[in-house]
This record gives sequence, structure tokens and C-alpha cells, in this order.
Amino acid sequence: MLEELKQQVCEVNLQLVAAGLVIRTWGNASGLDRARGLVVIKPSGVPYEQMTPAQMVVVALESGKVLEGALNPSTDTPTHLVLYRAFPNIGAVIHTHSKFATMWAQAGRELPCFGTTHADLCYGPVPVTRPLTRQEIEADYEWHTGKVIVERFHLGRLDANQVPAVLLEGHAPFVWGATTAQALANAIALEVVAELALHTLALQPLAQPISQALLDKHFLRKHGTQAYYGQKT
Amino acid sequence: MLEELKQQVCEVNLQLVAAGLVIRTWGNASGLDRARGLVVIKPSGVPYEQMTPAQMVVVALESGKVLEGALNPSTDTPTHLVLYRAFPNIGAVIHTHSKFATMWAQAGRELPCFGTTHADLCYGPVPVTRPLTRQEIEADYEWHTGKVIVERFHLGRLDANQVPAVLLEGHAPFVWGATTAQALANAIALEVVAELALHTLALQPLAQPISQALLDKHFLRKHGTQAYYGQKT
Amino acid sequence: MLEELKQQVCEVNLQLVAAGLVIRTWGNASGLDRARGLVVIKPSGVPYEQMTPAQMVVVALESGKVLEGALNPSTDTPTHLVLYRAFPNIGAVIHTHSKFATMWAQAGRELPCFGTTHADLCYGPVPVTRPLTRQEIEADYEWHTGKVIVERFHLGRLDANQVPAVLLEGHAPFVWGATTAQALANAIALEVVAELALHTLALQPLAQPISQALLDKHFLRKHGTQAYYGQKT
Amino acid sequence: MLEELKQQVCEVNLQLVAAGLVIRTWGNASGLDRARGLVVIKPSGVPYEQMTPAQMVVVALESGKVLEGALNPSTDTPTHLVLYRAFPNIGAVIHTHSKFATMWAQAGRELPCFGTTHADLCYGPVPVTRPLTRQEIEADYEWHTGKVIVERFHLGRLDANQVPAVLLEGHAPFVWGATTAQALANAIALEVVAELALHTLALQPLAQPISQALLDKHFLRKHGTQAYYGQKT
Repeated sequence: MLEELKQQVCEVNLQLVAAGLVIRTWGNASGLDRARGLVVIKPSGVPYEQMTPAQMVVVALESGKVLEGALNPSTDTPTHLVLYRAFPNIGAVIHTHSKFATMWAQAGRELPCFGTTHADLCYGPVPVTRPLTRQEIEADYEWHTGKVIVERFHLGRLDANQVPAVLLEGHAPFVWGATTAQALANAIALEVVAELALHTLALQPLAQPISQALLDKHFLRKHGTQAYYGQKT
Repeated sequence: MLEELKQQVCEVNLQLVAAGLVIRTWGNASGLDRARGLVVIKPSGVPYEQMTPAQMVVVALESGKVLEGALNPSTDTPTHLVLYRAFPNIGAVIHTHSKFATMWAQAGRELPCFGTTHADLCYGPVPVTRPLTRQEIEADYEWHTGKVIVERFHLGRLDANQVPAVLLEGHAPFVWGATTAQALANAIALEVVAELALHTLALQPLAQPISQALLDKHFLRKHGTQAYYGQKT
Repeated sequence: MLEELKQQVCEVNLQLVAAGLVIRTWGNASGLDRARGLVVIKPSGVPYEQMTPAQMVVVALESGKVLEGALNPSTDTPTHLVLYRAFPNIGAVIHTHSKFATMWAQAGRELPCFGTTHADLCYGPVPVTRPLTRQEIEADYEWHTGKVIVERFHLGRLDANQVPAVLLEGHAPFVWGATTAQALANAIALEVVAELALHTLALQPLAQPISQALLDKHFLRKHGTQAYYGQKT
Repeated sequence: MLEELKQQVCEVNLQLVAAGLVIRTWGNASGLDRARGLVVIKPSGVPYEQMTPAQMVVVALESGKVLEGALNPSTDTPTHLVLYRAFPNIGAVIHTHSKFATMWAQAGRELPCFGTTHADLCYGPVPVTRPLTRQEIEADYEWHTGKVIVERFHLGRLDANQVPAVLLEGHAPFVWGATTAQALANAIALEVVAELALHTLALQPLAQPISQALLDKHFLRKHGTQAYYGQKT
């Protein structure tokens, strides 16, 4: 079942490698069929060179049960499920250890919006989570990982539709979108924005975010009902 | 009409991707037929993999009207038009978010001439614009973007023939040249020079620009009536 | 003899170049047949483009004598032998001058565990050796190189099964694993982790290592008897 | 005449591009037939894609006269000639604007020997020249460029056989070797060493050069009469 989604999920996993965002097996992508309550996700630790759509694992959104697939799903599956349950408009989740985003996560710093490249992607800074506690790490680590992301959005009154990524403190980014294609585009953009910001600070240690007016302009010309970038569809 | 220019403009857009200066759809190039008052520009938000000369849009230099083309022109078209009107010798304009030049733009720092690689490209520092005001951003943003570039050249008494690029504060570079080939060469060189300067400062935070004599020597052996670099044509 | 191991050792040497970890001839990999007490190692200074399994040199683990092969073994052979003798579970050793790991070695700094990418590879920081003395350099340099690595593990009560790499002060990394494939994977991961840590410090000069709980979680979900990452084999 | 040397010089110019050391036309390589007093050098400003051995220009070592070739020789030809006259054992000269070496040149800092990768290439730091005076720039610039290099070696009592490269202040490196192949290998190594040193300083701003004993060991195991690296020839 879900052959088309398996195809898409397999494809986006391979494109993460092609885009240089995933090295070795350090990453995973999933897609959601929300109507049916089913998630399709990459198997755990399988080499990308041999990955096929048939290897993708089908997991129930609510119960987390594996419904189809001969291989173990990604160890990070519980994190994906928490995000799908909390953010009602997202249809795909990507986790990578892409280098520049990971540096910010390791530094425990949120990624400020220093320019329009960032504003085109995300409506404000990319947030960083708090560290997990020892208790959260020791029991149900991957589920708690999802929980601290959702907590961060809740406490910061952030909208997952406008902020499509988060930095896990001491770990790496999670990124999402309405579709696997959009999540991939967001993951690529996040990595560029993280690289830009790293060296922006080298040139200007006291760099300030762009103005609210410029942030509004760029985010809203690409997103939302007033968007005028691109072609009408 | 303008089939040859469409070919050139399409080609230079593709070469920006090949040179690593444009990621996803973040960039646009245009060319001008000044005699006829017509600009050929990339359509907005179209994937580069499928771009063809026939998709290029023809816009009137003075009125900004779309004269030919089924797709919307680049959202940045008004910026291109302002530059063509203000700088009488340029025949091509390129906008990218190339990484190193964008870092300087985000830092709000002009790019000093730290070496002969820079002097071969540009007769002095690459200037940075002032930030746009809220009013300039909210109405006719892309037109005002062009206006602050022209203002910067006017106030600084800069010559667009000798300074073929500018950094838009909080945004990214615009680059130009007499032809699409020259604008492309300048965009590639700007990116290298921006990378060199970033790390020159890391090694020497108080680095000073090269001497006027060395700047004169390098710029003028490649440009102008006394040039002796390359082959006589 | 040892045709399969020669094949593997030749292959891993070539993959080091393909992965960008070895430039020119700056690196060497070896494999051990512990039951027979024989080491297979790359010849010294041979261009990678022309390397074949038949060129690999067979050396006795205990005596260091060349038993087979028309070419001189790598000049670093004595270092490999010391490591094989001291660390009873390793089956392959790799030496590179991979850029980011080498920067840390040149800086004389151990590589802290700033994130889970590192924790997946190594159970704690990657140690750095003390400098060799003049006497150690002047006589039996390559043997002493192995000795200071072993000394570092001994004094720090480090376990080579849990810490699969070391930084030679003023020089570059050595990496190992149970097999050539694992040593290669470790060498690739070390280089990524070294790059991440370099820029983590740029963003956060006072960055602290991740918590013991998170280190335990990540290292132990991939390694040891409680591992649950990947597929059961 | 000199068909083989033309072939080699053309080839090394193309390999500089393939190795990423030359962007656009920013570089040139030459080779010397010392017995005949003839230098073969790249033409000026010719695109690399179309370069052929037949385009190489033959110049007399002593007089600097063009003896063969339809195109102008590299504008930097006088610099090459000064180096060949001053350094009696070199047979090839390469000039690039390779990024990392150029950053050091722009910073006006000599490149310290922070590790064995450097020691394998160069017996001590890579020196940087003084800036040229206005007078030296305005008349016979390229000849004076050679002169300040030679002056630097003379004042520093440096041996061009042991120090195969120099950084031109505010400009970029010159590199040499006994053959075009060796000069190319040195240019590649210099660029790596410059990158390593840049980030070594980021990790350890007070980094010290390696000990004299380690420098001696590495340089002398690869160079000179006691060398034991590689294969006997």
C-alpha cells in the first residue's frame, strides 16, 4: 500500500544524500498520508546506495505500530510521529546532520534571520530546543526528542507553518513541509542559511536581524495569500 | 523576437547554477538590447533544470511592460530596470545569493580591496547600500531596491563601469557588465573575492586595502585604454 | 597469500581518496590477519591512480619483516604494528592528513564531544598525544609515534574499542576499526565531527560537551550489547 | 621547437584548473630548458578550455624576447624569468591565486610550519615578500615582482631548493620545482597547508611551529640524500 508515497519518501532520502545533507546513514525522511493516518519512513541504518521504495516502512500515526515492511523503521520514528501529531498541516519530516545547521545545534544557538535568504524560508529565527534531561534521555529518548520540539514551539508561540525547522540542542536539525518536495527544499535552504549566518557573525559579531518590514516582505511575497513570487498555478 | 539575447540570458542563468552561485531558484539574470529599449529576463520561480530560451520574458526598458512571454518575469525585474536606466553602459545584470558575497551583505560591510584578485575586478571596494526604510519596503520594494543602489553610487561618486557590483544590505549582491558573459565573469570573481576577504580578516583583523598604486596597476592593466593583459583583439 | 585482505586494503586506500580524506600520497591503510600474525599495508609513495592489490606488502606483525611484496611498505608501517600489538580487537588501521582532523592535531587540542554525531562514533573526546621528544623523533620515529599513541590510551585509561581514533600532536589522525570497512567509516565520521567542532567553537567559544546521559544514549544505541540502531543481523 | 616541454607546460596549466587552484584565467605556469636558455610559458588571458600546446610561447631566458608563438606570453613572464635566473635548480614556475594561499598573502603573514604536512613540503615557513613601492609598481611591475621575491630569499638566507614557494604581499603565491610535475605537486600541497594553518589558528590563536627535530625528520625523510620515503628509483 501507499506505493506513491513510498516512492516519494525513498526519493527524498536519496536526494538528501545527493544534496550533501546526509553523510553515511545519518538522516531520515518520512511522509504522511494524513487521511489514512499512515506514515512511511526510511528503514534504520540501511546503506543509501541500495535503498528501494519497497524497503520503506509503514507505521500507524497514532499507535506507532509497524504495519508493513520487513525492516526496522528509523530509530527516530517516534520523533517523526510526535511532530505529525502536533503540527496538523505538515506532510513530511526530514532529519539530517547537515553540517552547518548541526554546528548551530551543537552551539545551542538559535539561528537569527540575518538576511532575505532566511526570510524566504522562515518567518523569524530558527529556534533551538532546551537540552533533554537525563530522565528524558534514558527512557523513550526519541519520543522525548519530539516532545521538546513541540514544547519549544508551544512556549515560543511559534507556528510550524511559518517556521519549518528546529535545531535540537547538542544534536542536529529537524525540518518539515507540506510535502516531501517542500521539506527537502526547506532542508536545503536551512543548510545554506546556517552557513551564511555562521560567517555573517565572523564579519560582524554584533550582527542584528533584518527589520520586521523586510522579514514580512520576503516571507509574505513567497508564502500565504498575498504571495506574488513564482507563477500562478 | 530577440532570439539571440534570449539564448544568452537563458545560458547565463544556467551557468550561474553550474558555477555554484545560484541554489534552487535564488537568482536571476537579464540582458538588454539598449538600441531597442528591450530587456530579456528570467521568469520567476521556474526550476533551472527545465529552463529554455523560449521561457525568457521580454520587458520594455522604460515602461516595465511585459511585451512577450507566457510566464511572469522575475520578481526582481523592477530592480534590473532601474539599474539599466541609471547606468548607461551596462548590458546585463545578475542577481544571486552567492554565499560569500551574501555574507558580506548580511554583515552590512563593504568589501575592501585586500588584494590584486579584487583589483582585477573592481576599482576599489565593493559598496554596500543603506538599509531600505519601512516605507521603501512596503511599497514598490523591488523598485526601491534599485533606487538605493543608484543612490549609493551617486552619493559615493562611484562609476558603474569601474565598480561592477554592489552588496544589498541584509540581502545579497547585484552584479553587471557590458555583456552577459562579462556580468557572469564578474559574478564569479566577486564570489571568490568575497571568500578571500572573509578569511583575510580572520588572519589579520586589521588588514588594510592594497595601495592605490597597486590598485591602479592591476585594474588598469586589465581595463581601459592602457590595458595590456590578454591578447589584442 | 592473503589475496582477499590485499583486495580490501587496496580498496580502502582508494576509497580514502574518493572520500577526500587523502590528497596526493598522504595516507595509508592496513589490515590485519590476527590469526596468522600478518599485516597487509600500502606501499610507500605510490600514486593512487595506479594502485593494485598485488602491490600491497605483507609484513609480519611481531618481527616487522617484509614477507611478500616488491615495493617498500609505507614508512608508517612501524606505527601500524605498534597499534595492532597494543589494541587486541582492531583489524584495520588508517592514517590520513584529512583536513579538519589535522587542524585539531596541529592545534594540539583534543576534540570534544559537542554533539550526537560525535557520540555515535566515539565514547568521549578524541584524544591528542603529547609531542614526541627530540630523541623519539631522531631514532625510530615511526615506532615512537605508535608508542605515544598507546601511552596516551594507557595514561587516559582509554579503551580503543570505544575510542577509535587519536590525533597526533603537530601531525594528523590515526583511526582504526575491527575491519577495513569500519575503519574507513570511522575515518569519514572523524573528519565530519572535526569540522562540526571547529565551527561550533566559532559560534560558541565556551561550548561544553554534551551530557554524559546523551553520550551514553547515542554511543550505546549504536555500539555494544544494548544497541538497537540499524537492522538485526 | 621544445614540443615536449610545450606539452608539459600546457598540461600543468590545465591541471591547475582541474585541481581547483586556478579560476578563470588567474594563473600561469612555465617550464625551463636551462641548457638551451629557453622558457615555455602560457599565453596571456586565453581561456583554459581551448588551450593547446601549440599556443605556448617560447621566450629567451636572458633577453626576455619572444622567440616563438603567435600570442602574447603571460603578463607575468618577467617574474618567471627573474626567478629562473636567480634560482639555479628550478625548472618550472607556477603562479596561481589559489584561495587559501592568497588569503595569507593578502593578510601579509608568512605561513608558519604548524605540522608535518607542511614539513613534508617546505623546510620552514613559507615567506611573504615586502610590499612593492609605488616606483616598483609603476615601472616594470612584473620584473620588480620577481625582484622582491629574490630579495626576500636573499635577506632571509632562504634556499629555493628547500622553500619552494613564496607569498606575494597583497597578491598571491608563486611556487616552483625542478620539473612541472614537482611544481604542480608543490602548488597543490601549498594550498592544503595554507588551509590547515588558517583553521589551526582559529583553534589555537597562539599556535607554535613544530619543533626543529620534527621539521628535520619530515623534510629530510622526503628530500635530500638521507630520504627514505617512497620507492628507490
